[in-house]
Amino acid sequence: MSKKIDLAIVGATGAVGEAMIRILEQRGFPVGAIYLLASERAAGTVLTFRGHPVRVGRLDEFDFSKVSLSLFSAGGAISAVHAPRAVEAGCLVIDNTSHFRTDPDIPLVVPEVNPHALRSGNGIIANPNCSTIQMVLVLKPLHDHFNIKRVVVSTYQSVSGGGKATMDELISQSKDYLSGKKIESKNFTKQIAFNLIPHIDEFVDEGYTKEEWKMENETKKILDPKIKMTATCVRVPVMVSHSESINVEFEKNFDIKKVKEILSSAT
Amino acid sequence: MSKKIDLAIVGATGAVGEAMIRILEQRGFPVGAIYLLASERAAGTVLTFRGHPVRVGRLDEFDFSKVSLSLFSAGGAISAVHAPRAVEAGCLVIDNTSHFRTDPDIPLVVPEVNPHALRSGNGIIANPNCSTIQMVLVLKPLHDHFNIKRVVVSTYQSVSGGGKATMDELISQSKDYLSGKKIESKNFTKQIAFNLIPHIDEFVDEGYTKEEWKMENETKKILDPKIKMTATCVRVPVMVSHSESINVEFEKNFDIKKVKEILSSAT
Repeated sequence: MSKKIDLAIVGATGAVGEAMIRILEQRGFPVGAIYLLASERAAGTVLTFRGHPVRVGRLDEFDFSKVSLSLFSAGGAISAVHAPRAVEAGCLVIDNTSHFRTDPDIPLVVPEVNPHALRSGNGIIANPNCSTIQMVLVLKPLHDHFNIKRVVVSTYQSVSGGGKATMDELISQSKDYLSGKKIESKNFTKQIAFNLIPHIDEFVDEGYTKEEWKMENETKKILDPKIKMTATCVRVPVMVSHSESINVEFEKNFDIKKVKEILSSAT
Repeated sequence: MSKKIDLAIVGATGAVGEAMIRILEQRGFPVGAIYLLASERAAGTVLTFRGHPVRVGRLDEFDFSKVSLSLFSAGGAISAVHAPRAVEAGCLVIDNTSHFRTDPDIPLVVPEVNPHALRSGNGIIANPNCSTIQMVLVLKPLHDHFNIKRVVVSTYQSVSGGGKATMDELISQSKDYLSGKKIESKNFTKQIAFNLIPHIDEFVDEGYTKEEWKMENETKKILDPKIKMTATCVRVPVMVSHSESINVEFEKNFDIKKVKEILSSAT
């Protein structure tokens, strides 16, 4: 029998936190004790894990020496404060926020792509932006075969990327649109119902957004700093699942039949 | 006072036909007699032009010698039969369908981009696909300055591109989605409400769709056959207005400030 792992989920009441709980259940991960943590506001909520009720505790009062692994997904500012505190207590942190991703001392890992990066590190493992993960999974086997020179990507990102509140807002805006009511945007910079928003995260230099900048820089860190890349990131009125249109230029000769074979047999 | 032009609109009851009527009104085009034409099924409908009721007539019974100009937008099969009949009767045809676009003897014209192409021709002027028009308007002034070498475009095309029935269907599918009903697709290959469909027009060779093929070949015909180009065309759940993410590679050196200046002052 494999050893059981005591773990904590930080941000357990959010859309990603909930998905983490369901995936731990589905994959039969050997969970010992589980601690579901959130802000003072959300603490006290009762969630379930493997059919048993679990009361959500307060992150700020939690003693991380109780667990050996914690999964963080409660925003960059929370990770900045509490991930080092967890590491200090001897806990391994897997951080889903953007806070540590570009830190050269923190491994940025997609298990299928660069597991070797886990060898380094200081107790925190970052995982990349959602739009980066699904792209590098496709690029990795092609890069191994043909050496990628340049990537042009345009995204079609669902509202789930913004969490539960943005998903609820697509529904409510759509209902308002269809009944002819005035639409107000709370979690988006513009109307998202029956519309597109080419603006995800903040604007940074040269007219790019931070989301676009992340795709470029995370891909370089995970896959190869020599890859040239440009991204255009667009929010679309879809509930779940990001899509991407990816144009890849290779250094080596390739043929499309071989590309299809490689992608079909990729994990 | 400028000379008035007697004209016919073929496909007057469709979404594009209606838009043509409104634009003729808005621009104060010197219309003499106007004939609104449609299939036997739609004939008899009463539309308005400049506040006056106009009864829609049958295309198959219309004598084109009554008009000097006709605007066709009733599908390629209709243009194939009736545009030559109109030309025969001495009428100039501007055809909005794809039927004549790739014919080397027919000028394919975007007035702001290649008006010189009007010098040739045999009485039919084709205008390009909607997604091509808005792209070449942007590419033209940049090509003049920097010589475009290669274009990678990904589209975000609204349902209006499919006409009135597809617009109605986005509304009805969205209502069904929001009330938990089963969604049936009549005018789309898949569900379009809260979804994306990377499939516009038929599939052609090498996994491309005809829409993608049109963008490439029409751009070459209108702008420059030397431009290399690849398009990915996606239908999005938006009512009106196509969007495009365009990556352009130039032969000459450029700077982004100059590019912005050129686009700002382009007509």
